[in-house]
Amino acid sequence: MPLSPLPLSPQQVLYEQVANRLQQLITDGTLKPGDRLPSVRKLRAQLSVSTSTVMEAYRLLEDRGLVVVRPQSGYYVKQTTLQLPQEPTPTAPPRHATDIDISLAFEVMSLMRDPGLIQLGAALPDLAMLPLAQLNRLMGKVLREEPTLAHGYGSPLGLSTLRAELAKRMLDAGCSVHPDQLVVTNGANEAIYLCLQALTQPGDTVAIESPTYFAMLEALKCLGLKALALPTHPREGISLPHLEEALQTGEVKVVMLVSNFNNPLGSCMDDRKKKRLVELLNQYDRPLIEDDVYGDLCFAGTRPKAIKAFDTENRVLYCASVSKTLSPGLRVGWCAGGRHHSDIAHRKSMINQHTAVPAQLTVAAFLANGGYDRHLRQLRRTYHEQMLRIQQTIRAYFPAETCVTRPTGGHVLWLEMPKGFDALRLYKEALTAGIAIAPGVMFSASGQCYGNCFRLNTAVAWSDELEQALQTLGLLAKKQLAEQLLREDH
Amino acid sequence: MPLSPLPLSPQQVLYEQVANRLQQLITDGTLKPGDRLPSVRKLRAQLSVSTSTVMEAYRLLEDRGLVVVRPQSGYYVKQTTLQLPQEPTPTAPPRHATDIDISLAFEVMSLMRDPGLIQLGAALPDLAMLPLAQLNRLMGKVLREEPTLAHGYGSPLGLSTLRAELAKRMLDAGCSVHPDQLVVTNGANEAIYLCLQALTQPGDTVAIESPTYFAMLEALKCLGLKALALPTHPREGISLPHLEEALQTGEVKVVMLVSNFNNPLGSCMDDRKKKRLVELLNQYDRPLIEDDVYGDLCFAGTRPKAIKAFDTENRVLYCASVSKTLSPGLRVGWCAGGRHHSDIAHRKSMINQHTAVPAQLTVAAFLANGGYDRHLRQLRRTYHEQMLRIQQTIRAYFPAETCVTRPTGGHVLWLEMPKGFDALRLYKEALTAGIAIAPGVMFSASGQCYGNCFRLNTAVAWSDELEQALQTLGLLAKKQLAEQLLREDH
Repeated sequence: MPLSPLPLSPQQVLYEQVANRLQQLITDGTLKPGDRLPSVRKLRAQLSVSTSTVMEAYRLLEDRGLVVVRPQSGYYVKQTTLQLPQEPTPTAPPRHATDIDISLAFEVMSLMRDPGLIQLGAALPDLAMLPLAQLNRLMGKVLREEPTLAHGYGSPLGLSTLRAELAKRMLDAGCSVHPDQLVVTNGANEAIYLCLQALTQPGDTVAIESPTYFAMLEALKCLGLKALALPTHPREGISLPHLEEALQTGEVKVVMLVSNFNNPLGSCMDDRKKKRLVELLNQYDRPLIEDDVYGDLCFAGTRPKAIKAFDTENRVLYCASVSKTLSPGLRVGWCAGGRHHSDIAHRKSMINQHTAVPAQLTVAAFLANGGYDRHLRQLRRTYHEQMLRIQQTIRAYFPAETCVTRPTGGHVLWLEMPKGFDALRLYKEALTAGIAIAPGVMFSASGQCYGNCFRLNTAVAWSDELEQALQTLGLLAKKQLAEQLLREDH
Repeated sequence: MPLSPLPLSPQQVLYEQVANRLQQLITDGTLKPGDRLPSVRKLRAQLSVSTSTVMEAYRLLEDRGLVVVRPQSGYYVKQTTLQLPQEPTPTAPPRHATDIDISLAFEVMSLMRDPGLIQLGAALPDLAMLPLAQLNRLMGKVLREEPTLAHGYGSPLGLSTLRAELAKRMLDAGCSVHPDQLVVTNGANEAIYLCLQALTQPGDTVAIESPTYFAMLEALKCLGLKALALPTHPREGISLPHLEEALQTGEVKVVMLVSNFNNPLGSCMDDRKKKRLVELLNQYDRPLIEDDVYGDLCFAGTRPKAIKAFDTENRVLYCASVSKTLSPGLRVGWCAGGRHHSDIAHRKSMINQHTAVPAQLTVAAFLANGGYDRHLRQLRRTYHEQMLRIQQTIRAYFPAETCVTRPTGGHVLWLEMPKGFDALRLYKEALTAGIAIAPGVMFSASGQCYGNCFRLNTAVAWSDELEQALQTLGLLAKKQLAEQLLREDH
């Protein structure tokens, strides 16, 4: 990547011109997050400037938060403060509880099993990134070691060996829960369903974030519950002032949300907010169902704490799974039900007795053998890279008006187009082009919001096909916006 | 077993005396089902009677249905018309719908995982009789063949390969259902739960047999439903006249029962009755949830048909599993939901997305490889032998007043003691002696009936320990009855 000499610009000092040139390369994706910047010597030669000018330019970029210096190594494009598309604003769903209307979800989800589609719709993990060979080896091993245990009736709570491992993992989320206070479930979905069933009667209202993971909406619908969708910030999560207002009315029976790297917004509440939320729950004597299925997938730093970590009165029902980190097909999740633990265990046994034993044995073996942390490090790095690359590609190909979330973990992006944009039309046109996306209306409890939004799964290995798919989506979006403008002109 | 010469009895002709003597040996268990009777020559010598007298005696026993002749081989004690303890009479539960009270079930079920107990409580299959080694080998094989498929998200319906095999198996039950009309579930329990959820609203009334498999009662309770327990014949199942009466009132929303080798009574409806039941359902426009989890475990002849086989209007929701025939721990069941299929599939996805894929792959492979029928033949024979042996042992050791069911398949026995007997006390005393049984009250929707009854699991390999356990149970029962008599005397 040789740079041509800079044109003279009397308005700017030289080192600023050099810095801006490099910044351009970063924001348009030529220099990618983690890439090393050209060496001082090389850049000096290419641009015909002095060493001190290059050094000044690099310092400026460092000040701007775009690059980091690694001693003895050089300057690198920073991972996190990359120039990204603009962010969506906090949401403002209708201010009353509604029945659930999500007829579209079942159709969209069924597309995820079509191998002919580029899968940007469902929030599928990238199976190529999961330790499947190791899991399969372990499953063979546990069946040899426990040829009978794997087939007998088990406890509704799940295997004690698995629960011990899960309790250990929960320490990373700041939660100290005894293994006997856990119930192993068929994925986090079932955990959420059981919690809702234990806490509610049909007709009750549940306060949720908005947009909301549609499987949560389906669980509400299945149990005849109403949703009070609350304004939600794309980075910080649910609005606590709005939540408190709703709690004050006494209308809300239960609060339910995804605490870390929420689906679809990617929001992550900070510790202060988590603590404040628990205080509100205590004050208004309400339970919280916390879904922390993405918490292990943070891109940087230590794993964020769960809200459960701040739970002083055992009123947070914590739900998680290994579906996003190890294997969706094994269907292993769990629930720490707090004061509702016994009721949840009983309901688990009433619905399907217990979770399949071979899957439990396998996950327990994987968590115990010590490979999980290593696997997570790799997964986090890859998912981060994939997401950044997709964000940049969106910036390159999508209409300038496109707002995109900036999650710090997980593997979904939420895109907001200008009002009037029809994401359902985009969904259909994309399907015709062999691309699955998840239209925003699926994430609206009332089925009335987010018609101009959609969600993209970013747990997809980079490929020319993927780039082409994103380009196609961008073109389709641009075409629709142009038509919209034309109509508005008339 | 040499017989001593007969005492002279002027009231009976000689061959009758010989026959009665042999019948005594059969009913007291000295001659067991399948045993060969002494040869004509031998008996003639032992009893000092003529050949024709022995021949007449044998013919009489044949007429009485106690022995069969096998050409070129001799006379054998018949398997089925064995002298057994007397049968319970049809049940007469309260004639109004009640809420469910089954607090005991959870406790009793948790005992089934105590390896220190003789397990006559839960209806556990005998794991030693199940093809576990083969299943484990197959699971290893399918993971090698499908290393990725096993871990991806699957269809809520379940794997199409498994559904194809299940549809084939259903042909044996007289049912022709397209694989796409099946939903694979986590055991039959989940299938029943999903069906109930699709068909009812909280507060609705479901007509059931009585006594009733307690997991069905738990599903009713979990969904806030009422039970109308109907009189049930220990051999023929639910009373259709009573059912029709209940249907006439319009009170009953759904009918739910175990069609073949019901748990706990062991009753099996004949084809005529199954057909008549379907006519009633059609006439009163009501759905039936049929649990056929024991149908494959018939002791003789061809497998009984499902009620679904007579379903002319697609209103029977058929539920079954491989938990009693292959492996409980794999948690694989299924449901043919008839006209409610789509709704059930949707609800399955709402509760836990789909059933664990490795377990599905394994069961599909087992059903496909052709070993299932051979395995079933062996299982049926063994379960039959074990049940007969336990029935005879009960006759030997239990109070004479004990009534015991005579199932023609499955692996549970229902014992009815005289009114006033406290089976809950027996349950507690038996536990102290290291024996688990299932007290009758667990099978009563209202929690008010069957206090004098209990259920025994007969899928237990014969052993001195088992005989001793049955002897202990008999002694405990005798002791309690004696005390009862003493109290009544005062």
